[in-house]
Amino acid sequence: MNSIETHLPNWLQRCADNTPQKQAISTPEIEWTFAEFNQQTIQLARQLSTLGIKQGSRVALLASNGVPFVVCVHALIRLGAVLVPLNVRLTLEEQLWLLRDVEAVALLSDAAYASRAAAIQQALPALTAARLQLETARRQVSLQGVAPDLHAPLLDEIELEATQAIMYTSGTTGTPKGVIITYKMQWWNAVGSALNLGHQADSDCWLLCMPLFHIGGLSILMKNVIYGIRIIVYEKFDAAIVNRAIREQGISIISVVAVMLQRMLAELDASQQRYPTTLRCVLLGGGPAPRPLLEDCASRNVPVVQTYGLTESCSQAVTLSPADALRKLGSAGRPLLPVQLRIVDKGVAVGPNQAGVICLKGPSITAGYDHRPDATAATIQDGWLTTGDIGYLDNEGYLYVLDRRSDLIISGGENIYPAEIEAVLLTHPDVAEVGVCGQPDPQWGQVPIAFVHLHAGSSLTPAELIAYATQRLARYKVPRSIYLTPPLPHNSSGKLLRRELPKLL
Amino acid sequence: MNSIETHLPNWLQRCADNTPQKQAISTPEIEWTFAEFNQQTIQLARQLSTLGIKQGSRVALLASNGVPFVVCVHALIRLGAVLVPLNVRLTLEEQLWLLRDVEAVALLSDAAYASRAAAIQQALPALTAARLQLETARRQVSLQGVAPDLHAPLLDEIELEATQAIMYTSGTTGTPKGVIITYKMQWWNAVGSALNLGHQADSDCWLLCMPLFHIGGLSILMKNVIYGIRIIVYEKFDAAIVNRAIREQGISIISVVAVMLQRMLAELDASQQRYPTTLRCVLLGGGPAPRPLLEDCASRNVPVVQTYGLTESCSQAVTLSPADALRKLGSAGRPLLPVQLRIVDKGVAVGPNQAGVICLKGPSITAGYDHRPDATAATIQDGWLTTGDIGYLDNEGYLYVLDRRSDLIISGGENIYPAEIEAVLLTHPDVAEVGVCGQPDPQWGQVPIAFVHLHAGSSLTPAELIAYATQRLARYKVPRSIYLTPPLPHNSSGKLLRRELPKLL
Repeated sequence: MNSIETHLPNWLQRCADNTPQKQAISTPEIEWTFAEFNQQTIQLARQLSTLGIKQGSRVALLASNGVPFVVCVHALIRLGAVLVPLNVRLTLEEQLWLLRDVEAVALLSDAAYASRAAAIQQALPALTAARLQLETARRQVSLQGVAPDLHAPLLDEIELEATQAIMYTSGTTGTPKGVIITYKMQWWNAVGSALNLGHQADSDCWLLCMPLFHIGGLSILMKNVIYGIRIIVYEKFDAAIVNRAIREQGISIISVVAVMLQRMLAELDASQQRYPTTLRCVLLGGGPAPRPLLEDCASRNVPVVQTYGLTESCSQAVTLSPADALRKLGSAGRPLLPVQLRIVDKGVAVGPNQAGVICLKGPSITAGYDHRPDATAATIQDGWLTTGDIGYLDNEGYLYVLDRRSDLIISGGENIYPAEIEAVLLTHPDVAEVGVCGQPDPQWGQVPIAFVHLHAGSSLTPAELIAYATQRLARYKVPRSIYLTPPLPHNSSGKLLRRELPKLL
Repeated sequence: MNSIETHLPNWLQRCADNTPQKQAISTPEIEWTFAEFNQQTIQLARQLSTLGIKQGSRVALLASNGVPFVVCVHALIRLGAVLVPLNVRLTLEEQLWLLRDVEAVALLSDAAYASRAAAIQQALPALTAARLQLETARRQVSLQGVAPDLHAPLLDEIELEATQAIMYTSGTTGTPKGVIITYKMQWWNAVGSALNLGHQADSDCWLLCMPLFHIGGLSILMKNVIYGIRIIVYEKFDAAIVNRAIREQGISIISVVAVMLQRMLAELDASQQRYPTTLRCVLLGGGPAPRPLLEDCASRNVPVVQTYGLTESCSQAVTLSPADALRKLGSAGRPLLPVQLRIVDKGVAVGPNQAGVICLKGPSITAGYDHRPDATAATIQDGWLTTGDIGYLDNEGYLYVLDRRSDLIISGGENIYPAEIEAVLLTHPDVAEVGVCGQPDPQWGQVPIAFVHLHAGSSLTPAELIAYATQRLARYKVPRSIYLTPPLPHNSSGKLLRRELPKLL
């Protein structure tokens, strides 16, 4: 009998075999067919092999959205190595912590992050480091000064249970945890999405302008080769460039967060343009969408598809079908086919219209966190992942997300965990107690603010504390404002009542 | 950590939850939404539970293509029971052999096969038997005279490794073997097909006029609920009815064998009609297609997609994309994404343009035969299934099937195994030796003919022997002609040289 393991042909290789001349990927620098893309991947994999990267090696990648990042992702797949994408916005200290925690053996970086990579290398001299470059003349991605290993053991198959990537997320404890992302999760997420949104093998083209170091971006790279469709990758989001691509390049699907979509619509108005009918799906994720934005899209016939997902669910888990967009305005929709969803209150699954914690189960949901058995056991029971987010199902089973995990702040699509900011501020000797929460912001959705109770006799100012935080936290995590307050509100068991914090304003 | 087992929500239930009002299935008798279809299934499952059918029960189904068959398939899924669809063309003796071999505990039949079911019940009194009926007034499928078990343990989930069906196929030994068809195979086949052909969630509609007791028909029932698309089911193939449905009902995909397509085109000419552009895919399987038919389709812009598959691969495994239809005329195309293919000659995988045995691997390929460890071990090694069919890959990896397993006869899409017919003829006391092979036939592709060497002194006539076979073999297996000959050709090891038989004519 067959093993229960499932082996698939390498997805990119299969695309190169099936449709070698089909356009695979475009960036401002290159346009590659699947055959070219595959060839680049093999070349880079051979260089990575020379560095000693092999099956199971944990390889950190510090690079901007672009060709080197994309080719590196697929080259690591060829070697069976584990990708650890680093959030480029983190501070040096934050990145060093992750690299140690994940026990990375190598760090690959592109030109944009050369100085940071050098600083990391100085702090972690045992790490093998190499620079990815796009030789624009030859339009080739390579590792500077590394010869190819022509005998590199390249994998022809993908074993679905194997780990493709480890992606860090913080959660309520304030300590980042590495979410294990398997090929199986990527596969089921891609298939679940295609069964829901449809799959137009010949004409689909997905525009990617989200960070590749987040699951929302990385999962599009996998859809590129699972579906065998073209993708367009931009380094940064620019409303005018994105709108022009939609009009001129036959984009059929684009993934955005609310702040991007708002800018796109504003730019559309400013340039007096409309979207063509080739744009069949605007996937809107990364937190709750403002109702006026959804109504604006409905009035323009912009095909917005709201989604709900998290790193642990390999991006979208729940999606509102275009057909329901108006009837269920404000809902995140229904779970994709591979996903089961229930609402749990006080440990019991509850019925329609009752709020509780959103729990998810299925083959696109992570099996756990890297070397964190306690966190895994606390989060996943009997295959059910407790997201910590609050929501309810209506009578037809449509999910309404009331609140991301009660303390989560979502700022321009980035998740910010108050506990992490609090932990940093508490390292200042003058700080006795601190509470962080989100404040509504017209541009970013939310920004973090902090309430700080100082030790008696301290003369620390909010400005000094913000400067202190700026040295230790990625910029988007630094509190927009810090308020000095008397002791903070707690519940009877002494737990900080973060929801009460805004009342202190 | 999660178990490696993969649980999905019941596919039909999920469709009923997601799109309750969407048209699910149409036949000349009924038109059901997914909510109605699901409700019917639950009702029937409760009646089946009363009969004692439960998880793991092997339940034979003897019914024509129609509503009772379809509802029964899904009701068995709800109970976790194993479907054993009986080829309705088999003789009583052949069916009894299968029922004993598979150790069926129950036999369900529809009105069309009432007398055969009674004969089976007489021969196998331990078998629980019940009659499926479609009450046309209430448009409801039920079991005659069986109360529902309101506490029936209905499954909400599908475990992919579980067995959905056992489907019999003969092979070279002449003894039918039960191919184990798991939910996993159905799932991966459906997804592989959608990734290749595209998936139009809102508008796809699949016409089913192939026998449901073959994998080509049964797998469409699974696509119905995995994709959440509408299907139209006909009891029999009728060119005029099928052509009218294509023109008037928005059929986008239809599965056919060559003889059906020929009749459809002839009828199209006779009625001076054309196919609308809504018909996007004519899946042509069940054996090699005549080149003039393919050229005729190309000249009419009929979107023919040739496929190669077998019961063991859960229907299509290799498919020629519409884009390649003309460039690669005569090829069966390239393997679907979940399938790996290689050509093996003398135990070694060979390169392009070298003929050998077609071998397949992947999650849509069976893990083996029911209680036939020897046959399983002989057919599947390291996950690779040896099909026995002969073919080669061209320089671009496109499969050309030269010969179905050397001795296989394909007559109007039905597989006929010479060894099985030979075994029956050899039971006649006058027959000393017999060889069966296929003869080209303009209508059916092939028909079986037999060469018989009689014992000295026998006066048996071919007509008498045909009458003898007719009592013991399904009609399509009875040799069209029987030729009395001297001793038959053998190779040095004494094996019958079936390929030499036509020379005796």
